[in-house]
Order: sequence, then structure tokens, then C-alpha cells
Amino acid sequence: MSDDDALLLANEAFYTAFAEGDEATMDTLWSETRPVACVHPGWAPLIGREAVMDSWRAILSNPPPIRSGRATPFVYGDTGFVLCHEVLQEAVLAATNIFVKEDGRWLLVHHQAGPVQQIEPEPESDPGPSRQLH
Amino acid sequence: MSDDDALLLANEAFYTAFAEGDEATMDTLWSETRPVACVHPGWAPLIGREAVMDSWRAILSNPPPIRSGRATPFVYGDTGFVLCHEVLQEAVLAATNIFVKEDGRWLLVHHQAGPVQQIEPEPESDPGPSRQLH
Repeated sequence: MSDDDALLLANEAFYTAFAEGDEATMDTLWSETRPVACVHPGWAPLIGREAVMDSWRAILSNPPPIRSGRATPFVYGDTGFVLCHEVLQEAVLAATNIFVKEDGRWLLVHHQAGPVQQIEPEPESDPGPSRQLH
Repeated sequence: MSDDDALLLANEAFYTAFAEGDEATMDTLWSETRPVACVHPGWAPLIGREAVMDSWRAILSNPPPIRSGRATPFVYGDTGFVLCHEVLQEAVLAATNIFVKEDGRWLLVHHQAGPVQQIEPEPESDPGPSRQLH
């Protein structure tokens, strides 16, 4: 499997755990050895694994219906990020998810999501990278 | 200079060019050889250097008074990111700026900024990483 595909798969696993409120899996998707951070929409930045996982425990106790769309992988050696949409019931967010490859597994080290004001309707199937409307 | 310090310096150069509307310098701060992307607050994601630099030309033609605060570097080999606040006149945003090291220079490959709803007042001097309020 290419790094691009492996990165997209890791990103999908993240949104599956997110949508299912699967706290145990979410914990395994984040690096335990590298510095991690997280910016939830509208929250102040969280730094450090304890603060980040505490936030996920709170969010996953009542998970939103969420799925990712238009995910695009960016690989730079053993680090990479996925840029994607987060499709919620009445909103679409843009998200940056940064991963590092450890022992062949891509693990999260950072997540930032924020609102997108103007966006095309999201089709059910993923047609690829987003087109800029401005 | 440590990679942490070099990364913070590259981040500062980005916000100096941003605040000064310095399009020529902004262009030199972004990688020319690696894939780049950008999510401006409320915009749909931009992918590719042409789209990203077009957006900066538009923004820098009328630059906002902006400065960064509480910048924290995260280094993973030759890739890293800076998590920081963007302090504007009436708003504070959270930003993730991803860099890759090319020939000893840290160059931007991605920027995402979005609003922070609840935040401590920003002091003039930078006291270090943000404290989470929730």
C-alpha cells in the first residue's frame, strides 16, 4: 500500500472512531511517543497527550454524526497530513490532520478543524479534492 | 540554532510578511518543490501552490494588522508545525502552520487558521503555550 493510501486509511479510521464514539480506538490512533496537539472548532489549542485525550473522552461521550469527505493526502517522508472536509448534519468543516509514521503505522499528532462558510454541496461519494469557490 | 528555534523564526517571518502585506517575501516562505495547501478562515480548502499564492496575493493587497502569540513548535525530523494564536484587532484565531526543511530552511507547506471562541486576554509579551480553559 502506498503512503498516500495508508494515510487516507488512518484518516478514515479516525473519523470512524469519532462517529462511533469509540474512545478506546481513538486512543490507539494518537501517537504515544511524539508531541501531540489539537484544536477543536472554537476551542483554545490543546497541547500534550493528556489534554488532547481528555478532550476526546468528553467529545466521544456524545459523538456527533460525522463523516469525512474530499480527503487529500500530503506525504513528506515519515510525516504527512490529510486535508479533508468534516460533514456534519448542518455544517461542513475543513480539517487538517497531521500524522507521523511509527513502525509502519501512521499515527495522529495533531488535528485542527474549523468552519467553512462557502462550500459546494457534498455529494454522497467522494469526488476528490475540493474546488475553491472564491 | 535548534530546529525548534528555527521553526519559530520561520513562523515569525510568515506573520511579518502577512502583517506588512509583503507578497514577494511571502512567496519565498512557501515551498516550491513540495505539495502545498491552505485553509483561510471560512474559506474552502485551497490545494496547490498556484491557488495558495493567488489567495495570498488577494489577502496581502489589504493586509490586516496581525501578530502571532503563544507559538509552540512541534518538530518531527525534517517536518514540523507551529501551533499559535493569530491576534487581530477584534479577534483571536488559532493557527496550524506546517513546514518542511529544505536545504536547511524551514518552508511552509500548509496553513490553517480558524476562530477561537473562548480565550484568555493576550498579553503583549508571549508567555508560552496556551492554557486550555474548558
